[in-house]
Amino acid sequence: MAVYTDVSFEDLKLFLAGYDLGEAHVFKGIAEGVSNSNYFLQTSTGSYILTLYEMRVEQADLPYYLGLMQHLARHGVPCPLPVVSRDGNVTGILNERPAAILTFLDGVSLRRPTMLHCQAAGKAMAEFHAAGMDFAQRRNNALGPQGWKKLAGDCADSADSVAAGLRDLIAGEVAALAALWPANLPQGAIHADLFPDNVLFVNDRISGIIDLYFACNDSLAYDVAVALNAWCFESDGAFNLTNGQALIGGYQSGRKLTREERDALPLLCRGAALRFLLTRLYDWVNHNPEALVRPKDPREFLRRLRFHRAVKDAKAYGL
Amino acid sequence: MAVYTDVSFEDLKLFLAGYDLGEAHVFKGIAEGVSNSNYFLQTSTGSYILTLYEMRVEQADLPYYLGLMQHLARHGVPCPLPVVSRDGNVTGILNERPAAILTFLDGVSLRRPTMLHCQAAGKAMAEFHAAGMDFAQRRNNALGPQGWKKLAGDCADSADSVAAGLRDLIAGEVAALAALWPANLPQGAIHADLFPDNVLFVNDRISGIIDLYFACNDSLAYDVAVALNAWCFESDGAFNLTNGQALIGGYQSGRKLTREERDALPLLCRGAALRFLLTRLYDWVNHNPEALVRPKDPREFLRRLRFHRAVKDAKAYGL
Repeated sequence: MAVYTDVSFEDLKLFLAGYDLGEAHVFKGIAEGVSNSNYFLQTSTGSYILTLYEMRVEQADLPYYLGLMQHLARHGVPCPLPVVSRDGNVTGILNERPAAILTFLDGVSLRRPTMLHCQAAGKAMAEFHAAGMDFAQRRNNALGPQGWKKLAGDCADSADSVAAGLRDLIAGEVAALAALWPANLPQGAIHADLFPDNVLFVNDRISGIIDLYFACNDSLAYDVAVALNAWCFESDGAFNLTNGQALIGGYQSGRKLTREERDALPLLCRGAALRFLLTRLYDWVNHNPEALVRPKDPREFLRRLRFHRAVKDAKAYGL
Repeated sequence: MAVYTDVSFEDLKLFLAGYDLGEAHVFKGIAEGVSNSNYFLQTSTGSYILTLYEMRVEQADLPYYLGLMQHLARHGVPCPLPVVSRDGNVTGILNERPAAILTFLDGVSLRRPTMLHCQAAGKAMAEFHAAGMDFAQRRNNALGPQGWKKLAGDCADSADSVAAGLRDLIAGEVAALAALWPANLPQGAIHADLFPDNVLFVNDRISGIIDLYFACNDSLAYDVAVALNAWCFESDGAFNLTNGQALIGGYQSGRKLTREERDALPLLCRGAALRFLLTRLYDWVNHNPEALVRPKDPREFLRRLRFHRAVKDAKAYGL
């Protein structure tokens, strides 16, 4: 949860003068996302999210993220649609930060998704991948093997304070995965962070896919691996095979995984677990109390990483 | 801003089963209030605020606060209306905390209210006081002279770290005001925290008076003194006489201040400045980074207190 930048109504009013959205009737900071400041905005024309991009989001990447949302929304994926200002831009400057207004999507995110929700999420991911195929812009995954190496170095000195032996375990994984990481799987625009927080449901149907600020071009199956990590583990650390089957089944109802993708799935899942272990570890040991964000426990992904290391083949995920 | 307690949609759903509000379509933590956790909730029947009362709000006071809102809303004051559950209650238990659902009021709070807004706020306060007259419940002001004495003691050791000489200044004020504090002014239910944050406007008209969690029975003119402190100072510390005149004028369009109230106004303003100096100081020196709240600078009210100490009579406020 986060509202880093406090925007006054008076400043909002000046910003809104650049848009054809009418007068603001509701304007409230909301606890959503960890990298940006988000406001719920209601005007005479509808409901919106106003986002101020804080330091953590590279300004140079905004055209990719916002362009992808436009592209996907136009292809029927329920993404927020960036609102275009009177002078034709999707970003402006508010309180000295880049800012955008996106359409607000109804729906609630689930804490404990069931099989049906996992199936719907898998299917939506396949639709996301299909719609993203002809998106022209490109962005590398900054949190791939090279990014892990950097994060591992940054966290090396404090890793063992979080879990005994974590420093060595991470160093070993980073090296092993760099050597084994598959490069020739089918590629495309992926969400790369499709956790239950980022999927909205209305009456068990998906109404929104949000927070595309890690989206990038990478292996499509890596996105599935992220989702298996995100949707299919119980709070006690156990893998929920029913949810795994449902998620993969939902995905394959839209796009069949290739033989190579299926073979690579345990490795991709291991990499995805390492990616979230590392970013959470980094946030945990570099936690700034001023940030008004409670860091998440990295050890959750240490358990998941251990699970994937023991997996022999993709059948363990329900394939 | 605050969301101390993280409520899952699944837990919300169970809680909502006790109400006739339909299915939830939107559920987002919002950055509002500093004592409670607040969620914006939209269901098939409308928009609501779900509030979880954290430790800082005395559970025993909830019937007073919620009863006052019901009473005022029924008398035309634009307060949130507590929603009654199927079994006839306005509070329930959610995530082990008392919780209530209130109607959501459209409107935005202003950072830099103009004369017109101050006039409207004064008028609304007079209407609040009039409507509260026949409210049967009573609650003492826990942040009156006795409360200041306790807060001053709690902050004594750290006061000088915030401003040189603050400890002695506070001790002197607490003693002086205890001796001089007027006891026989007209009494009633007061808001006691009517800052611009707690007043919502739509197109410059008041659409909501919110956050009644400091409401109590006290001198009506003390409420005016709080509002003069809250609405009529510039960010550089200067008193804005135009706004002061407008606020008092708006109030007196609904209810004339008595001679005794006018005479007491400088003292009441001094007490109100001390009250906010003390609570902010307490929050500043006892700041818990886990609270996800940025404490406000107490020195703002030290400057206001000094201003009021130099005031000779109520003319200085525009009366």
